[in-house]
Amino acid sequence: MEALNNHLQNFPHFSPVLFEQLAPCLSVKHLEEGEYFLREGKVCKQIGFIETGIVRLYYLNDGKETTKCFCKENSFTCSFQSMLTQQESDVAIQAIEPTKLIVLSYDSLQKLYAKDLFWQQVGRMVAEAEYMISDSHQRFLRDLSATERYVQILENDEELLQRVPLNYLATYLQVAPETLSRIRKKITRT
Amino acid sequence: MEALNNHLQNFPHFSPVLFEQLAPCLSVKHLEEGEYFLREGKVCKQIGFIETGIVRLYYLNDGKETTKCFCKENSFTCSFQSMLTQQESDVAIQAIEPTKLIVLSYDSLQKLYAKDLFWQQVGRMVAEAEYMISDSHQRFLRDLSATERYVQILENDEELLQRVPLNYLATYLQVAPETLSRIRKKITRT
Repeated sequence: MEALNNHLQNFPHFSPVLFEQLAPCLSVKHLEEGEYFLREGKVCKQIGFIETGIVRLYYLNDGKETTKCFCKENSFTCSFQSMLTQQESDVAIQAIEPTKLIVLSYDSLQKLYAKDLFWQQVGRMVAEAEYMISDSHQRFLRDLSATERYVQILENDEELLQRVPLNYLATYLQVAPETLSRIRKKITRT
Repeated sequence: MEALNNHLQNFPHFSPVLFEQLAPCLSVKHLEEGEYFLREGKVCKQIGFIETGIVRLYYLNDGKETTKCFCKENSFTCSFQSMLTQQESDVAIQAIEPTKLIVLSYDSLQKLYAKDLFWQQVGRMVAEAEYMISDSHQRFLRDLSATERYVQILENDEELLQRVPLNYLATYLQVAPETLSRIRKKITRT
């Protein structure tokens, strides 16, 4: 749980006592490639901190998968809308590499919120990050052409392109796999 | 500033001392109908608590206005993406009734975050609310037909339909004003 401890040390007002408060509430979950952290239609009752690996969040849009984002090591993952409302999630979370998560339940999170306001700060920053992911996803689809979307990832997070299978990348860019192949060939040539 | 004081009393851990901490940072802003709290292209440097009135947040999509949401009394409003990144906003905030806002600057908010963790809790809840607005807007446009969108507002917030001019409502539903008229006639008849 070292990675989560290190991550929390970045937050102002952190003290080791706070991690001692948190530690008994945590558990570890290992997912094989392809396994699910959350299925569509289930209520999201836990938040995961990714220690190693990568997951994708996707939803069905007219029966077709759309990958909303990829979350990798040193970040939190959950179906945020389902977590907040405690209603069914329309997002599924699937590992696309063997993934190790540190898991905190929804109920434990509520208790931590009540116990120390430090956790409110963590909650604020997670909520802000979730907002930015959701907002960026909207802009990404609304404002950029398929090629521009690919170039944006190439420029900002080239490592992601090495780790994510092309069929999942295509559902993130919202293009057919053949279109993605054409874009990649064109970019490589230029 | 009574309304904001009352609103904050709903948060756990609130104490009157906290409002005394906040009060010197606040100012009051009155907007006439049609006036702007924030223009597109400007950086959002303040968050507003609406005491009376109603504003709409909109962005341009292929040159056409899309209203993202309406915010009314007893809620906060800002361009959240611009507030978080301190970069230019692609969202404008315009009053559609005479509106009175209690205003807190971005800089004061950062100081409050550092001063007392209570404000982190307020920040968390505002961030969560902003996430839900953004997420609902996506689903609303993605999953519902024009008629279903109208019916959803009619069922959940009929008062909004009395207060919002039809041309703005059409940009929220993303339909032409004539289509909205047809939908309204159809609903009234059934």
